[in-house]
Amino acid sequence: MKIADKHYTTIWLKDSHTVQIINQQKLPHIFEIVDLQCLDDFVVAIKEMQVRGAPLIGVTAAWGMYIASITGELARAAEKLIATRPTARNLQWAVERMAKADDFLKEAEAITQEDIMQCKAIGEHGANIIEQISNDKGKINILTHCNAGWLACVDYGTALAPIYNAYEKGIDIHVWVDETRPRNQGANLTAWELGQHGVPHTLVADNAGGHLMQQGLVDIVIVGADRVTKTGDVANKIGTYLKALAAKDNNIPFYVAVPSTTFDPDATSVVIEERDENEVRYVSGLTPRGVQEVLICPETTKASNYGFDVTPARLITGLITERGINERGLHQIFFKTQNC
Amino acid sequence: MKIADKHYTTIWLKDSHTVQIINQQKLPHIFEIVDLQCLDDFVVAIKEMQVRGAPLIGVTAAWGMYIASITGELARAAEKLIATRPTARNLQWAVERMAKADDFLKEAEAITQEDIMQCKAIGEHGANIIEQISNDKGKINILTHCNAGWLACVDYGTALAPIYNAYEKGIDIHVWVDETRPRNQGANLTAWELGQHGVPHTLVADNAGGHLMQQGLVDIVIVGADRVTKTGDVANKIGTYLKALAAKDNNIPFYVAVPSTTFDPDATSVVIEERDENEVRYVSGLTPRGVQEVLICPETTKASNYGFDVTPARLITGLITERGINERGLHQIFFKTQNC
Repeated sequence: MKIADKHYTTIWLKDSHTVQIINQQKLPHIFEIVDLQCLDDFVVAIKEMQVRGAPLIGVTAAWGMYIASITGELARAAEKLIATRPTARNLQWAVERMAKADDFLKEAEAITQEDIMQCKAIGEHGANIIEQISNDKGKINILTHCNAGWLACVDYGTALAPIYNAYEKGIDIHVWVDETRPRNQGANLTAWELGQHGVPHTLVADNAGGHLMQQGLVDIVIVGADRVTKTGDVANKIGTYLKALAAKDNNIPFYVAVPSTTFDPDATSVVIEERDENEVRYVSGLTPRGVQEVLICPETTKASNYGFDVTPARLITGLITERGINERGLHQIFFKTQNC
Repeated sequence: MKIADKHYTTIWLKDSHTVQIINQQKLPHIFEIVDLQCLDDFVVAIKEMQVRGAPLIGVTAAWGMYIASITGELARAAEKLIATRPTARNLQWAVERMAKADDFLKEAEAITQEDIMQCKAIGEHGANIIEQISNDKGKINILTHCNAGWLACVDYGTALAPIYNAYEKGIDIHVWVDETRPRNQGANLTAWELGQHGVPHTLVADNAGGHLMQQGLVDIVIVGADRVTKTGDVANKIGTYLKALAAKDNNIPFYVAVPSTTFDPDATSVVIEERDENEVRYVSGLTPRGVQEVLICPETTKASNYGFDVTPARLITGLITERGINERGLHQIFFKTQNC
């Protein structure tokens, strides 16, 4: 998608021994491109969230396997990459696929291109839902949580792909952007990428979504996912479950946009990552002196920091996948197709 | 309650023409006492949230009427005080009661003492609920949203009064403190006052409550309120409704602790305050250079900032009042009693 009118993807091969990424830790205030040239660079990039979002974590790990293959670090590469973060399904999927490949460069390129095509298709299918609602209502208010935009993938995004597609079609849309504490991926990333692309949006505190829905100010909720279980439950950024409950209580359609790489047909439960308490205790942002962290609680206060929650299938209207829309209950059929 | 082992209330008369308050805008990093000596001082204190919390807003307005009576500013005092903030019922209640009084000093003192006694009684009644659950479960995890502690009242608090009472009784409790974006009253105030008093607690992002409940890590939710309508719906800090939905979905008791001064028998709906978008766009906290604000989104991003939401009576297990516990549906009886 566009940054100041120039087309970017989140990750690309610069030369045979260098992968480049946009450092998402520093957005929106600093635009920095980082070189990844050894296995540890990839481990740090994923673990420290220079790249994040389930699809992009998968693609980055694939490129990590490629670079490891040319730096002679392949022995423990799969293990080290998979250990970086526990919740995103795509990470394990991409590493396992790479491990089976004959040509690592070709396979990493294939995984990258497939992600782009999947997101594009998700955008097309999802935009049909938005268009349908728009035919009834005119202007559409869409609420999203965290960042499942092009920054979470290679291009287009998952939850935001239908939004970009609908916007290009000229449908009158407005996006409510949850700030997504503790790491503020909504405020930092979703607001930034929607702004760069010109899509009308408004930032809100995570607490606001229920009230907006009660007031009739939300027509559809679209979020991404880090893992979809066998029973259709969805692990996504902490707080997603609360929005799904509010959508249900107000009869608002709640869709999860996911590429098939996020489905985990073996999963009956999900490991929820616990992260550093300082992500809750401190907030990072811009001051006249540059980017700084501020402590938002007493110095002695302890915090807890679960990264994800699980939204039960019963609260989900449907899954928007590259193969089309799976309304609730139909994820089983999706798995069947996938296994054929 | 205690600050570093010394007993404080949130507001007190220093001398016949000076009221003093703890400036809650600056907590937890700076402890500052402010003199209020004219009507405008009170208007600013309430409007700028040097004092906040429905009961304390009411008591502060009462003292504002007293000071206005000795500075010759009584003519527009009631109107100016009521106009400061729209949602808290106690503000209007206190100003109207003062307007009818013969002796303003005596009446403001009475309102102050009554608030203390009401909160103390709420603590006693609420602690019985906590004790009952503790008899079944042992250690009790309580989730609270925003600050409805002694800082929101004169002393003891509403939602936190039962917690302090249970703690003094030696019941094994732990409090999950929602940070409460956008103004972080949980992180700034609730964590601070629980810490000063020694009550075990952990700060969490507002997004975390649903996951904690799903994991069996919450035994009861207790929040305060800014206004309770005729039908038992509760206006409270934005995000309360989301926690009530999650409590319902996980069969966790959800209580609202309120003095009778927060009931509004005439209200069928509530005016929800919309505040400055910069409260969402910026976060304030401590840096090595002192307290600073940081911008958490792109400079051009617009935000929306609703201060409260309304939790429908159907999601509320009961109201904890100074007169006892009103289980759901019984608020009508409460109003009847009040009108006798």
